[in-house]
Amino acid sequence: MNSKNSHPTTVGEYLLARLCTLGTKHIFGIPGDYVLRFNQLIEQHPHIQFINTTRENSAGFSANAYAHLKGLGVACVTYGVGIEIISALAQAYIENYPLVIISGAIAEREYKKNKKCHHLMNKVATEHGDCTQLEIFKNLTIDHGLLHFPSTAAAVIDRVLHSCLEHKKPVYFELPRDMVDQPLLHLPTISSTSTSSTTPIPDLDKVLNETQRILSNCHYPLIWAGHEILRFNLNSPLLRFAEKYNIPLVSSLLGKTVIDEHHPLFIGVYQGEMSSDKTLETVKKCDCLLIAGVIFNDIDTGIFTTKLDHKHQIVVNHDSLTIDHHHYSLSLVDYINGLNNLTISQSFSLPYASRHETVIKKFSAVSETKTTMKRVFECLQTHLTSEHIVVSDVGDSLFASSDLVLAQNSFLSNPYFTSIGTGIPTAIGAQFADPSRRVVAIVGDGGFQMSAMELSTAVRYHLDPIVIVLNNHGYGTERVLLEGDFNDIVNWNYTQIPLVLGGGVGIKVATEEAFQQALEKAFSQRNTFYIIEVDLDKTDFSPSLTRLGETLGKIVKSEN
Amino acid sequence: MNSKNSHPTTVGEYLLARLCTLGTKHIFGIPGDYVLRFNQLIEQHPHIQFINTTRENSAGFSANAYAHLKGLGVACVTYGVGIEIISALAQAYIENYPLVIISGAIAEREYKKNKKCHHLMNKVATEHGDCTQLEIFKNLTIDHGLLHFPSTAAAVIDRVLHSCLEHKKPVYFELPRDMVDQPLLHLPTISSTSTSSTTPIPDLDKVLNETQRILSNCHYPLIWAGHEILRFNLNSPLLRFAEKYNIPLVSSLLGKTVIDEHHPLFIGVYQGEMSSDKTLETVKKCDCLLIAGVIFNDIDTGIFTTKLDHKHQIVVNHDSLTIDHHHYSLSLVDYINGLNNLTISQSFSLPYASRHETVIKKFSAVSETKTTMKRVFECLQTHLTSEHIVVSDVGDSLFASSDLVLAQNSFLSNPYFTSIGTGIPTAIGAQFADPSRRVVAIVGDGGFQMSAMELSTAVRYHLDPIVIVLNNHGYGTERVLLEGDFNDIVNWNYTQIPLVLGGGVGIKVATEEAFQQALEKAFSQRNTFYIIEVDLDKTDFSPSLTRLGETLGKIVKSEN
Repeated sequence: MNSKNSHPTTVGEYLLARLCTLGTKHIFGIPGDYVLRFNQLIEQHPHIQFINTTRENSAGFSANAYAHLKGLGVACVTYGVGIEIISALAQAYIENYPLVIISGAIAEREYKKNKKCHHLMNKVATEHGDCTQLEIFKNLTIDHGLLHFPSTAAAVIDRVLHSCLEHKKPVYFELPRDMVDQPLLHLPTISSTSTSSTTPIPDLDKVLNETQRILSNCHYPLIWAGHEILRFNLNSPLLRFAEKYNIPLVSSLLGKTVIDEHHPLFIGVYQGEMSSDKTLETVKKCDCLLIAGVIFNDIDTGIFTTKLDHKHQIVVNHDSLTIDHHHYSLSLVDYINGLNNLTISQSFSLPYASRHETVIKKFSAVSETKTTMKRVFECLQTHLTSEHIVVSDVGDSLFASSDLVLAQNSFLSNPYFTSIGTGIPTAIGAQFADPSRRVVAIVGDGGFQMSAMELSTAVRYHLDPIVIVLNNHGYGTERVLLEGDFNDIVNWNYTQIPLVLGGGVGIKVATEEAFQQALEKAFSQRNTFYIIEVDLDKTDFSPSLTRLGETLGKIVKSEN
Repeated sequence: MNSKNSHPTTVGEYLLARLCTLGTKHIFGIPGDYVLRFNQLIEQHPHIQFINTTRENSAGFSANAYAHLKGLGVACVTYGVGIEIISALAQAYIENYPLVIISGAIAEREYKKNKKCHHLMNKVATEHGDCTQLEIFKNLTIDHGLLHFPSTAAAVIDRVLHSCLEHKKPVYFELPRDMVDQPLLHLPTISSTSTSSTTPIPDLDKVLNETQRILSNCHYPLIWAGHEILRFNLNSPLLRFAEKYNIPLVSSLLGKTVIDEHHPLFIGVYQGEMSSDKTLETVKKCDCLLIAGVIFNDIDTGIFTTKLDHKHQIVVNHDSLTIDHHHYSLSLVDYINGLNNLTISQSFSLPYASRHETVIKKFSAVSETKTTMKRVFECLQTHLTSEHIVVSDVGDSLFASSDLVLAQNSFLSNPYFTSIGTGIPTAIGAQFADPSRRVVAIVGDGGFQMSAMELSTAVRYHLDPIVIVLNNHGYGTERVLLEGDFNDIVNWNYTQIPLVLGGGVGIKVATEEAFQQALEKAFSQRNTFYIIEVDLDKTDFSPSLTRLGETLGKIVKSEN
């Protein structure tokens, strides 16, 4: 058996054994009667811990963070009322998180006796059970497994997990409560989750030759690396290739920290006209662009302002590659690994001084001066090392965070699905995935109100994220677009939250000096979480948000 | 035009005008860029107020409460990230709330330019837009309207609202942001939401004759009235009929307070073997049962222990009627109204003393005695009048609440979908729907952790619910079924929440006397919310939960 938990003999044990083999040490969720026996089975597992969150969608967002850092995330909910996890499923679907949702379900023989049971929705009812949740989740998953039959359960589990890992998309298991302890009737003989292959890869040589030809004829190649490089764990081969030929890199926002941003070859996050001047100039100067694993969404393209018109352009994604105008069904994994077999005669010179020189090393607080978004991030930058993971909620926290210079694979947000309120559960999931690094979560007040109390989970499991609440008094991002009372929120005393939760430290600051002191205190103490509330002006936006707002505002107005 | 907001000329104005005509004064939601212009339009409406909640599913639960008390509830969210409202949609679907969800959406011409925009999911993409959210919501709605065309928008709005009111089920509107201000091209000439009819109703006479025959031959008829009586506003005609012939009534849990529970004819909430002894005896003694608007779900039947085997039984629901073994497509509305045209020669004698004699009028706290679930509800009972609405979250709060004797239409919970965490948003929605009555929300600690911070909305709009937090230290309902660490939660200092929110009063009590004093204080002061945390023993369950737990526990164990 491919498991640390040797010889699983039941459906529930097999599912846990497979997840354990794939590196799962924590499963996030909320218990409920249709899943209670499986919750108990997790609790009894020697290598997997059940992590109680306060609500289901938090469990999902935490699992997505876990998937980001460890390659697979698992959340477990009960039927029907667990459907709230759909927000995290949507994020996972659109941002390519290998997320596994396990939902309990009613036993088929119970259902046959009476369909009208609590938690069931029965809009789509079959003789086997209520399929409503499945029909809903089908719209946001790449595969699913109904574990209704012990004879096929193991094979279904293997197939669905394989789909999840192959496509880096969410999957769904439905586990009726009477199936948890059912003996497995057939065990698959070969693990179908293996993706290695020894057969020649069609078109690879042709594409590599084409790549070689293009690179040999350019002076300033550039790599634009996206989140798929992170998901498919291709950071090392990509960087090896870049280093071999001295090719600089930019990243997408979704792929931020695909390589260490202090690396001499790293230029910045490229988002069209929203990018920093230096990044923009570098992109404009390049005469060959390799776009690897980038999704051209509105946020990542600076609202479609990446008007790239390079003759020599290679666009490669998960399962396709376009080089000039030729299209191939070549995978990102095969192509990036293949690049290291190329032999190009020249090494390139950089089109611009590398960005790492501009990293701020020291912050001098101006005394008695109200702090600003810009200064908060300058101060924070000086505290960040490779020992930290930065989580950003959506809003100006995200736009401002995009300029932080960070270590490899140390940034989590949701810049494509753009759901506010993800910051805290993401921070929780990140710390479980990588307890060696301290998590810094940057959240706006609007997003924080949606999930602040998930810090309860930090109290329970002794986690210590540093939460920076950028209090700009409402939905700041929307004020730029269209102002109204609907953008206002109640001004909570965020630093009193530790009093409610029975753990953590709260500090409210308004000046540069106070923020710096609060940060120093928080970074110097582990084993307790910090909430640092920064009082900001309602109209203090980051330069990045101001530029985005102007662009989006034009769209909203022109559409009406 | 059928509107107080005269002459709507645009799609957005027409939608608001129709909702206004149907009694909508508040729309609950969270703003977002795809819906921002519509948010502004609501804000500018003279008779409708936009109520900001802190999260989308709260908006949905508040709208369900509003629907319960006012006949229609409306929630408004932005696209994609607003999908979290699905929990409330599931509740509305299964418990028959006429809930209208309005979601903003991307403009078709924006989408045609580029499909990869923030918040979109694009699993189901068409040329007109991303249909993923629609495909998901189709599984929990009775009808939907895509307001993509000004030429059909008014007719679509009318049709969908008509479906919502006719079926008492949720509906979904998708309003692209460029359509909000589009001029209407066609206006419907007749409001299609009218349900009145002058044509004879097929089978009505036949069924009434049958009813008359059955009633004339029995001695102890009984009415079991469910939530559909509330939804279709049939309380008065049903009670008129009961009073005319002196027929006693029991209610379902979902239909609790379908009539004033102090009424001499009211016996109790009937839930099979979970019912009080007196209710059970009354049901067993009756020789003719009229079951009106009841859904036979597990909770409402005491886990299917309502083994009714009356020869003379009439079961009528929204759109069907069964009398003895004859089935008719007769509607609940037509039948209940028709009952008042019956002439039965006899008036019946009650099978049992009416329940109202047992209502506790006075509570004497035993000094220095730790309070219990039983005593908390005895004390609370003495404070409740027709000036109050009781909201119960799911868990032992619900089982214990079922025994409270309350005024007509003064109880809200979700005993069929059974989602914990609904208590606070339900209380918020209830107070907006009926500001004349004080709301008392009874919640468990587990459920309260899911939505406690929605009390922020109480601070914002000066609402004053009295929140009783039954702190039994974890998911008490589940401990009865299967014990494990997963049933534990962090023990918050719930009474410190007012400090965070900047409003409200928190009181923690453990004894009978302290609880009584806290209640008296809370009931004597309006305009501020109260949190009364009651410290209970982990194993202090209501008698009702103990009985349910035993039944459910057997099921969980036998299934494994």
